Amino acid sequence: MPTPTGVSTDELRRANLRAILQTVHTRGPTTRAVLTRQLGLNRSTIGALTGELQSLGLVSEETSAVGGRSGRPSHLVVPREDNVVVAVDVGVDRIAVALVGLGGEVLDRRDRRHQRGEHDVGHVVDAVAQMVEDVLGAAGDQKVRCLGVGVAVPGAVRAVDGFVRFAPNLGWAEVPFTDLLAARLGRPVATGNDADLGALAEHVRGAAVGYTEAVYLNASVGIGGGFLMAGRPLAGARGYAGEVGHMQVDSQGPVCRCGAVGCWETKVGENVLLRLAGRLPGGGPPAVAEVIEAARAGERRAAEAVAEVADWCGVGLRGIVNLFDPEIVVLGGSLAQVWRAAEATVNEAMARSTMMPRDDVLIRAAQFGVDSPLIGAAELAFAPVLDHPQAVPTAS
Amino acid sequence: MPTPTGVSTDELRRANLRAILQTVHTRGPTTRAVLTRQLGLNRSTIGALTGELQSLGLVSEETSAVGGRSGRPSHLVVPREDNVVVAVDVGVDRIAVALVGLGGEVLDRRDRRHQRGEHDVGHVVDAVAQMVEDVLGAAGDQKVRCLGVGVAVPGAVRAVDGFVRFAPNLGWAEVPFTDLLAARLGRPVATGNDADLGALAEHVRGAAVGYTEAVYLNASVGIGGGFLMAGRPLAGARGYAGEVGHMQVDSQGPVCRCGAVGCWETKVGENVLLRLAGRLPGGGPPAVAEVIEAARAGERRAAEAVAEVADWCGVGLRGIVNLFDPEIVVLGGSLAQVWRAAEATVNEAMARSTMMPRDDVLIRAAQFGVDSPLIGAAELAFAPVLDHPQAVPTAS
Repeated sequence: MPTPTGVSTDELRRANLRAILQTVHTRGPTTRAVLTRQLGLNRSTIGALTGELQSLGLVSEETSAVGGRSGRPSHLVVPREDNVVVAVDVGVDRIAVALVGLGGEVLDRRDRRHQRGEHDVGHVVDAVAQMVEDVLGAAGDQKVRCLGVGVAVPGAVRAVDGFVRFAPNLGWAEVPFTDLLAARLGRPVATGNDADLGALAEHVRGAAVGYTEAVYLNASVGIGGGFLMAGRPLAGARGYAGEVGHMQVDSQGPVCRCGAVGCWETKVGENVLLRLAGRLPGGGPPAVAEVIEAARAGERRAAEAVAEVADWCGVGLRGIVNLFDPEIVVLGGSLAQVWRAAEATVNEAMARSTMMPRDDVLIRAAQFGVDSPLIGAAELAFAPVLDHPQAVPTAS
Repeated sequence: MPTPTGVSTDELRRANLRAILQTVHTRGPTTRAVLTRQLGLNRSTIGALTGELQSLGLVSEETSAVGGRSGRPSHLVVPREDNVVVAVDVGVDRIAVALVGLGGEVLDRRDRRHQRGEHDVGHVVDAVAQMVEDVLGAAGDQKVRCLGVGVAVPGAVRAVDGFVRFAPNLGWAEVPFTDLLAARLGRPVATGNDADLGALAEHVRGAAVGYTEAVYLNASVGIGGGFLMAGRPLAGARGYAGEVGHMQVDSQGPVCRCGAVGCWETKVGENVLLRLAGRLPGGGPPAVAEVIEAARAGERRAAEAVAEVADWCGVGLRGIVNLFDPEIVVLGGSLAQVWRAAEATVNEAMARSTMMPRDDVLIRAAQFGVDSPLIGAAELAFAPVLDHPQAVPTAS
């Protein structure tokens, strides 16, 4: 009889280091006693492992006299947030950058508007690099250890190397964005689709914690979707899965940026709402909030715009819920704003089909609001160290 | 340090029996030499395992003097097809039943038309039970060992117990069909969604063998979808995932059986094509074939009907490919017929959006034609024995 593939002591140690680091990163400071219970290891093993994580500079231990019933002091294992990543969200009308410490705390956050004329890849690489260096400079290069840079992009990103195949709202096609930015910064860069990263953030530390079948839908100028099925991200063959914006929902137009007609994105994006309400496009979430406020205050055109967009939200949600049968749908960006403002209209459109098991599906606004993709980009940048703590770079 | 969870000798033996039985079931008769190589076990272990499978009555061994280079006789391990299941496909206008032997051979196949007036659950249970008993009777109850009954149903089936939540084209809602049929037959019955089972069949032994990201779409009266992502079926939270028919693709109607408007199913089902072509609905695949033939022969109304349905096929396919990024899309039923007849029109509709990575996606007709769900139902019924060969019932 063959024996099962062996697990070496090194692999086991790495797996245990990983389990401890991931626990304190996602749940925050944790006592050794809890780690011991949770990981099923004994006290001395936990002590040795947390000692190694300390010597790697990834955690610190705080001893408190306020112990348990035994009176023994409680050792609190704390993620060291001088281990940082820089997270970037390249939107259509703004770039957001955050310095995020191990443990998930956002230590600094900046954003800057950019416009259609500035979507050229060279421009974006320059702007992002400048913002990354600024935020690291402000933190004090000597005081933090930067583990990498994670970037969210509104487009189809190849899983293997972060190559951007297509980001129609930026006008990008076949762009080696990740390589360009990494070369410019001299730092490791990982790039993902913004909605996939939003889904990751909401699953790791947001509205979808604990759900294995989750859909995250985010609308700003376009719409993105990130899907978690059986606890794993839906990637597809090339990492392009989740493009929800270009399902046709109407034969009557309008013509979409992608060339087709009546895509969902042409019915529910931010600017769709603004135009329907007679506003200028481009104002982002504050402009959407203004329309919703005006609708509440009785402005008829604003109210009709909100109702129309809410109806189309429900139409698209129905299709997606029928396809994926999720436990939870997390809405981000203007989808969350519209849903909050007109939940009954959204529900009505979903319930128009008796196929819709509406009662079974939880709908929630994203915990991180417009920042879910940004928080997810930080998680993407932390992933290599969380996966292999011993490979952490020892110099900053 | 903790040791990894141990694998007992019993578990290991079961895993190896399972690997051998699954191999001969899906690939057919296999020599011991090939099994030895493929499973990474030694010759004597393979001999002991195949011996156990023989004593369980699941395989036989044939010895052939035509050996390999060594001149040693080759032992061929052959699945015993007197181990049978009965597969059932409950369609809207017909019930098909097949007797399928271990190894996948269809030993007998019958179908019988039924109509809207006969969709009452009691009627269907009676009809199916009669057909199952007939096909087993014809095989000779003493000559075969029936391992179970698998049923494909065009609706949302709860994964855990085969409860049919909703099968709109049969008019069923909240129906304990599986329990009713099992009680009636006194045999184990497993039920699944027809499209999920079609996807299973095409993945195990059809057009999608070897692909881990596969979509199966089947149209008859309605449309069903079965999805394989990262090699695993997409089930969703309750097993209802894959309802592709009720995505809205048009705001202009028609009203769907489900209550909503412009569902994909109202644009591409069999009867849609028949009506557009001026035929009576209800003729099934032969009637669809007749329209396609007439279109080829130059009948204008038929040609326009085929073109219109092909265009709507492409519209829906585009949305699905964008959502799932599959390697392969397998088309069954009238979708395959229409695609074969008007591939260029389907492609044109898909390519209307530049989001569509059309070139990367393989589209194929289902290898089992209209019988993919039936073949998948057989696989569903075989699953418990393939998973646990030692649990095979020893009396028929």
